[in-house]
Amino acid sequence: MTTVIRNATIIPMTEKGLLFHGDVSIRNGKIHRIGTVEEKGTEEIDGSGMIAMPSFVNCHTHAAMVLMRNFKDGKANLQDWLAEIFRIEDKLEDGDIYWASKIAAAEMIESGCTAAADMYFNGWNTIRAFKEAGIRGIIGMTFFGDGKETEQRLQTLPQRLDEEAAGSDLIRIDAAPHAIYTCTRETYGAAADWALGRGAMVHTHLSETRKEVEDSLREFGMTPLEYLDSFGFFRTPAYLAHCVHLTDSEIERLGEIRSASVVHNPASNLKLASGYAPVAKMRESGINVAIGTDGASSNNNLSMIKDIGLAALLAQPRLSAYDILSMATRDGAKALGLGSRIGTLEEGKDADLILVDTHQVNETPLNDPFSALAFSTDRKNIDTVFCKGRKLLEHGRLLTIDKEEAIAKANEQWEALLRR
Amino acid sequence: MTTVIRNATIIPMTEKGLLFHGDVSIRNGKIHRIGTVEEKGTEEIDGSGMIAMPSFVNCHTHAAMVLMRNFKDGKANLQDWLAEIFRIEDKLEDGDIYWASKIAAAEMIESGCTAAADMYFNGWNTIRAFKEAGIRGIIGMTFFGDGKETEQRLQTLPQRLDEEAAGSDLIRIDAAPHAIYTCTRETYGAAADWALGRGAMVHTHLSETRKEVEDSLREFGMTPLEYLDSFGFFRTPAYLAHCVHLTDSEIERLGEIRSASVVHNPASNLKLASGYAPVAKMRESGINVAIGTDGASSNNNLSMIKDIGLAALLAQPRLSAYDILSMATRDGAKALGLGSRIGTLEEGKDADLILVDTHQVNETPLNDPFSALAFSTDRKNIDTVFCKGRKLLEHGRLLTIDKEEAIAKANEQWEALLRR
Repeated sequence: MTTVIRNATIIPMTEKGLLFHGDVSIRNGKIHRIGTVEEKGTEEIDGSGMIAMPSFVNCHTHAAMVLMRNFKDGKANLQDWLAEIFRIEDKLEDGDIYWASKIAAAEMIESGCTAAADMYFNGWNTIRAFKEAGIRGIIGMTFFGDGKETEQRLQTLPQRLDEEAAGSDLIRIDAAPHAIYTCTRETYGAAADWALGRGAMVHTHLSETRKEVEDSLREFGMTPLEYLDSFGFFRTPAYLAHCVHLTDSEIERLGEIRSASVVHNPASNLKLASGYAPVAKMRESGINVAIGTDGASSNNNLSMIKDIGLAALLAQPRLSAYDILSMATRDGAKALGLGSRIGTLEEGKDADLILVDTHQVNETPLNDPFSALAFSTDRKNIDTVFCKGRKLLEHGRLLTIDKEEAIAKANEQWEALLRR
Repeated sequence: MTTVIRNATIIPMTEKGLLFHGDVSIRNGKIHRIGTVEEKGTEEIDGSGMIAMPSFVNCHTHAAMVLMRNFKDGKANLQDWLAEIFRIEDKLEDGDIYWASKIAAAEMIESGCTAAADMYFNGWNTIRAFKEAGIRGIIGMTFFGDGKETEQRLQTLPQRLDEEAAGSDLIRIDAAPHAIYTCTRETYGAAADWALGRGAMVHTHLSETRKEVEDSLREFGMTPLEYLDSFGFFRTPAYLAHCVHLTDSEIERLGEIRSASVVHNPASNLKLASGYAPVAKMRESGINVAIGTDGASSNNNLSMIKDIGLAALLAQPRLSAYDILSMATRDGAKALGLGSRIGTLEEGKDADLILVDTHQVNETPLNDPFSALAFSTDRKNIDTVFCKGRKLLEHGRLLTIDKEEAIAKANEQWEALLRR
């Protein structure tokens, strides 16, 4: 079975400014040919008026928090808001997380994203939902608390997650110690060692708020990054969500630590009035910067194309449209250690790609396609989405998720949760 | 002929937090009943899963600049970018402006907007396009230069615009002196008097960049607002686009001038790296603040729902979702002097309203509908749009504009313009 996309504008994201008119063929889940495809496909897709490009990589989210979308808004700071959220989270059950993760997967697919680094409780439910949806899940096994709690978690949780992930090469389990204000140094160490031992990575929150930095200075006499650095945390490859309040010297240090990426979450950071990361400066220091939506409870959606637009506006005039698109595709893939498999369109890579419909009024005239993607495109332009060659979205319609069922079930679970 | 929308979540925007479940009927272009409608409509619309609310009011745009969408991006500041744009504008012809305005109207309708305050050349083309599209156009008759040029313009231009507007009560002609760095004091005075004499308003750019403020201080010894104030400009009701760099004392003064509103253009201001207006502070000083998309050349789209989302994020934690929606509806209507006709859903007002489809994955669960509108909604959720009772969009499809024709013609015009 070969799928051929014909006559598209192809943006492979392999080098700045490169685009050309041509065809892409997909075979056995991989990009088979790019350029002119002679072979007739089992399936032929008309790509005229479309941009073909790598699908987006969402490097920081809490998928199941879609349940708390538009819930308890208007809290003045992260701490007050987290207190409200924690009250709900104490009552979460598997069905809540499973159906919420289905909605999350659907929302990400509709916005052109096929890979998400998640961090949440009871991740086996998210694994199941993502597997059924057909997207890549880098599932953060979440740690809170001290070394003893972490030791207990490590006795059963990895096995539970591995069992659920079995048979899929789209799922990977990473270690996700929540944050320095919820985990001890022992927990960070154990999480980093566990990940290192199995070739996985560490996903954590870092320097999200000014308060976190002030508390760290008071408690440890160091900034959050210095604190992690002080006990050798960066021995394990990591991606660090937020990094809003890094100092210039921390940015310099992070540029030297080649194994850690920053995940920029502009909507969530603005929503919670935390500021936003100095992305241009970070890139200049050699840091690999990716983009994440964070959870829908603080965004309040999981649309990568919306966060791309926001990141682009916030970075003017220092970063180009290409830079931002790079953060959302190839740099995201690199952040998750997937750079050899996804993030660019290249023959032999996995076929994780999207068709963006530019034959719409909001893209007329198109002029610069890079600018169009970063500044004009929205969810209504996302026409077709493939993940590892499987078609997940066609003309804006979900193929692997029953939208009506997912909406009904997620609403039911949430109403039941509120009554619990 | 009566249209009845049944079983919607109605957000009338008449008071903070008010929403209820019910019906809306439309007759003779007006909102006939809100609440429970017994009467059977000539047309019945199922509003279940929909939010019915006032359509958005775009208080500052340059519709025909859609031609320059995604064109010459990456200029480091407003002045460099304007130089590029002016080169193109010297070659503009009527057909360019007409077809570009069609695209603009289509784009605004698709994003839930039915009223736009425009400022551009050869406005008769925009009037014709807006009339055909069925949206409200507050057409700024644009002034540049000195008193002599303005006198010449006033001899023929008002008549030309009035002729084109004849027979439509959706079009109004306002005076639009471009900016203090392109118009003399005499031009501002003549524009204000002309508008005052016919009960119209004045639309101008103000304090968009730091450079504009610095130049004003050097040339006039006053800030831009003080300069306008010094020769009695505010005798005529006005709406002032941008106001990014107002000082605290200017904000205080503008709060006293009850006849002038500010138009916040967050995407454009970030895109051109000008900063953005201190909206919360302005509202606290009693200033009426509206929202505009500005032209697509500096945004790069005309989606009011996108600018609403951006305005909401930038204003956290000081403004609520309701405040932002108010700016985009009732405060926008007030800014344009249309507060008695549109901007809220009330019996007897013109039926300018939208249905937002919340039965989508990105709005599941819905939780707070105000937050959902400000933070989760995008163009794909805009289902149905009415302007003065005429249906312009149905299930996301344009009814009054031939999309294929408009895209083809706008592209043709733009290609021809580049060769001219």
